[in-house]
Amino acid sequence: MKRILDNIINDSRDSANTGKVADYIPELAKANPQALGICVTTLDGKEYYAGDYDTKFTIQSISKVITLMVAILENGAEYVFSKVGMEPTELAFNSITNLETSPQKRPLNPMINAGAIAVTSLLNGKTPEDKINTILNLTRKICENDSITINEEVYRSEKATGNRNRALAYYMKSNGIFDGDIEEILDVYFKACSMEVTCRDLARIGAMLANDGVLISGERIVSRDICRIIKTIMVTCGMYDASGKFAVHIGIPAKSGVGGGIMAAVPRRMGIGLVGPALDSKGNSSGGLKALELLSREFDLSIF
Amino acid sequence: MKRILDNIINDSRDSANTGKVADYIPELAKANPQALGICVTTLDGKEYYAGDYDTKFTIQSISKVITLMVAILENGAEYVFSKVGMEPTELAFNSITNLETSPQKRPLNPMINAGAIAVTSLLNGKTPEDKINTILNLTRKICENDSITINEEVYRSEKATGNRNRALAYYMKSNGIFDGDIEEILDVYFKACSMEVTCRDLARIGAMLANDGVLISGERIVSRDICRIIKTIMVTCGMYDASGKFAVHIGIPAKSGVGGGIMAAVPRRMGIGLVGPALDSKGNSSGGLKALELLSREFDLSIF
Amino acid sequence: MKRILDNIINDSRDSANTGKVADYIPELAKANPQALGICVTTLDGKEYYAGDYDTKFTIQSISKVITLMVAILENGAEYVFSKVGMEPTELAFNSITNLETSPQKRPLNPMINAGAIAVTSLLNGKTPEDKINTILNLTRKICENDSITINEEVYRSEKATGNRNRALAYYMKSNGIFDGDIEEILDVYFKACSMEVTCRDLARIGAMLANDGVLISGERIVSRDICRIIKTIMVTCGMYDASGKFAVHIGIPAKSGVGGGIMAAVPRRMGIGLVGPALDSKGNSSGGLKALELLSREFDLSIF
Amino acid sequence: MKRILDNIINDSRDSANTGKVADYIPELAKANPQALGICVTTLDGKEYYAGDYDTKFTIQSISKVITLMVAILENGAEYVFSKVGMEPTELAFNSITNLETSPQKRPLNPMINAGAIAVTSLLNGKTPEDKINTILNLTRKICENDSITINEEVYRSEKATGNRNRALAYYMKSNGIFDGDIEEILDVYFKACSMEVTCRDLARIGAMLANDGVLISGERIVSRDICRIIKTIMVTCGMYDASGKFAVHIGIPAKSGVGGGIMAAVPRRMGIGLVGPALDSKGNSSGGLKALELLSREFDLSIF
Repeated sequence: MKRILDNIINDSRDSANTGKVADYIPELAKANPQALGICVTTLDGKEYYAGDYDTKFTIQSISKVITLMVAILENGAEYVFSKVGMEPTELAFNSITNLETSPQKRPLNPMINAGAIAVTSLLNGKTPEDKINTILNLTRKICENDSITINEEVYRSEKATGNRNRALAYYMKSNGIFDGDIEEILDVYFKACSMEVTCRDLARIGAMLANDGVLISGERIVSRDICRIIKTIMVTCGMYDASGKFAVHIGIPAKSGVGGGIMAAVPRRMGIGLVGPALDSKGNSSGGLKALELLSREFDLSIF
Repeated sequence: MKRILDNIINDSRDSANTGKVADYIPELAKANPQALGICVTTLDGKEYYAGDYDTKFTIQSISKVITLMVAILENGAEYVFSKVGMEPTELAFNSITNLETSPQKRPLNPMINAGAIAVTSLLNGKTPEDKINTILNLTRKICENDSITINEEVYRSEKATGNRNRALAYYMKSNGIFDGDIEEILDVYFKACSMEVTCRDLARIGAMLANDGVLISGERIVSRDICRIIKTIMVTCGMYDASGKFAVHIGIPAKSGVGGGIMAAVPRRMGIGLVGPALDSKGNSSGGLKALELLSREFDLSIF
Repeated sequence: MKRILDNIINDSRDSANTGKVADYIPELAKANPQALGICVTTLDGKEYYAGDYDTKFTIQSISKVITLMVAILENGAEYVFSKVGMEPTELAFNSITNLETSPQKRPLNPMINAGAIAVTSLLNGKTPEDKINTILNLTRKICENDSITINEEVYRSEKATGNRNRALAYYMKSNGIFDGDIEEILDVYFKACSMEVTCRDLARIGAMLANDGVLISGERIVSRDICRIIKTIMVTCGMYDASGKFAVHIGIPAKSGVGGGIMAAVPRRMGIGLVGPALDSKGNSSGGLKALELLSREFDLSIF
Repeated sequence: MKRILDNIINDSRDSANTGKVADYIPELAKANPQALGICVTTLDGKEYYAGDYDTKFTIQSISKVITLMVAILENGAEYVFSKVGMEPTELAFNSITNLETSPQKRPLNPMINAGAIAVTSLLNGKTPEDKINTILNLTRKICENDSITINEEVYRSEKATGNRNRALAYYMKSNGIFDGDIEEILDVYFKACSMEVTCRDLARIGAMLANDGVLISGERIVSRDICRIIKTIMVTCGMYDASGKFAVHIGIPAKSGVGGGIMAAVPRRMGIGLVGPALDSKGNSSGGLKALELLSREFDLSIF
């Protein structure tokens, strides 16, 4: 396995070079575009690495999965999905058009920014600190890694430049999707995006989802039903407006982030974490996509 | 003239009854839906009234004309129209879709909310107080009425509920249309909308525009060129997404506000102010539109 | 199994009663809204029925699956997907907006009308008759049912009233998506939609897909790769703009048609055919959806 | 006057060189991009020329004015405007999006392609020949030029390549905007667009409109009310999605065509015809716009 992963990383470096590091947040632009790493965690607890597997990066949109999990645990799926839809969209992850043109006015799904902000607004904690701590603690627990923290520079950079997200939030508030203080909600959202992880952490999140909510240790984190909802939405909406193509070519429930991470869950088999900060035009890691495609073919991982 | 105006008001009351007072701002919902008044100011300084001409109401979107005037006086037309377009739109005055879908990303014209907020961001004063004072003082001067003030209840109501406008502002900021503190810019915008006037005040604004920038007293306020730009944009964009129909049926440069006011300028002939808080589905005064149509026919006021 | 299916049909009749038979094509409006039937074909060749399983209906959009299969067989997947995308959309199946607003101008996926028309334009036969015969013969072969024919009344009704599809076709032609005679292409499209089937036929199509391209008889119809592409696109795009919700709640690759049919493929387990002409607001069979949801829960059929 | 026109043409040649001849219809691409001509017809019957005033070109979208006139004469304004709106749009002249997204589903105004096709569908003649003859005869009469004919090459080129217009027409038919044979309606539309004129002809159309419906000879062609409607719509919608900017900078009711013509009507003063086949990005004659701007400034022609 180790040798296969090494080969996959080598064969994906050219694809990584076609991408471009995200620069809409100044701090993200500092990432190393050449970095490319992978970690696979099988459900019997084995972990395999290759490439720059110890590169740290911010989790970004992959946090949407954790936040959705917390929101469902706290509010039930029915309530959460009365506030946000489950439908994929061909529009970009930060688009506002649908909030105006769709008949229901609510965000289409929890994997686009508008949807994730709406989901964040549902968290139960009394203060923003409570809420981010719930997210952070659940992430640490799933990853069995208490050293996961928030990258303060990225967080401040997100907060300073997050005007598009503010626009989405105020638009939803004006439509009655949620109430509450926008800066407080966005503070939780920006901090969740700024959690710093490695691809090993992502592989463990994937493994828990692949294992229907149970950690390698045997501890149950969430119910099978919640895992199923989340994996399904990862398939239909997880890779932004390239989700359809990703499903055909790779066929694994996955979620990407503009920090360069991809977290993937192969049901009953393994969790996969990838990092490669150079992104394609849709915002997905170029090298990570290539490596995941090669891995999926090698081990026939598509769920379809 | 007085008798004609009385008849017009009487003949327009049925139309007023088909409208509905704006309720998206709680304070506006308190207006009297039956109120209907008109004032005509001819360029030789005569004033004629009928109906509830002394009803006070907030100027709302008609302030967009004053703010545009100030912005052009301070920055020149070329600079202002590098930040905001001149094209009418079939979308509603508070729509955000065009900011995302139009190739230039800038607001289409200064008479929709997004455009007026962008124009407000261009004002030169050091503080929000400076900026609103410039607007207020110019309004008082044009209206020859120093008692015009800001209705604090309406202002606070706008500020408390203006989340759609915040969404527009943050979206434009994220697109680089302007920089600056959003709450400060919106504070000026909300206060300008909350100036309390009567239809006599509006008639005087119309008369100044009709007179190519010169007050009845002979004092020049703005150049003929600026007046022409403003009157043109009033024709193409002044009555929201009913501007085209208004131009055909009434044919006078005019601007309406959701407070129920309409300000109209008949070139070289007269200014007209109307009030009627009951609005049609486009946000224009139902009774005011009817009265203006009757007046336009009676005196053949269409510029076309 | 038979008893379970009987119960499922009984428990789904209330849902069927909430729907409405399609009436945009006059001939479709004649269907019996109360009809509700199911057929399950397991991969060992057993067939189970319940309800109005012998009701005949036109296949409608489920033909998009067959046409896509033929187009890929004739042209290869790469060429087909250079003309049509793979991305789901939140817009309705007959929407034209995306053809104008999407950067690539091509239809988003082969399961919406525009995409299916583009796919039809790729068929290789010399005449429209050749092309529809290829589709019809493949359908008969997969269903092992040589009595499948085209319902001439429905076909003529589609042809007479199919102006929205003509608009989609001419728009694509003006964008250079395809060339060729529009009426000839649409003739094939309308006839493919008008193939008359029962839910037993649909179950056999599903079984072939569930069996990765091999009939019960052991004969291979298409490659595993093509089956995978088709099942994936059925998941992301098969149930119109309710595909995301369907994936979460039911989780089976499926395709619906406005004739009231649903064809579903449970990988390595079974094909399912349903009929229930009363449709919900998205165009999916109300009773069929309910029955499929109950069946999926009963046997844990979700792929997620 | 002659000398002024000569200077204006000379001063506009640079602007003409920035444009590009329309090439979406092969025949149009043959026009001379350097050609630039003007004709002014005053209401006392004098005509002044400069530049390539005798260049022949097809009238294209300027025919929309004539067709609208015929439709109103035959059906009354109320009926015509129940089928087509009066509102300007920021979308391109050949856009289809609004037919799907606007609440009323009807075309926004008679100056965009969809609107003009809908207007054409209202013409009363029994055959397409009758209808185009009505348009052609009215054009000849207004221009006092019986030699105006249809350019058969351009007509056939339009017909062969007019798939976007077919898409618009079928979409409207599917929405019930009109019934009738699409190819017959489009035949009239394409022929009307292919009438061959000079800028002298356009100047005479403008003069008739400027004179409120009366020819230089004193003969009344249409009522003042119809002229007013048409001139108003020319202002708000006549120059495609550059109408707003044109109104501010030039301020004359005008209509352009992709053949390079511009027809303008200065109320109570003059008609103006221009030709310059090199177009700007909006589809308006680059040189013609410049010449009209210079003329408007020279003689203070803006109606605002």
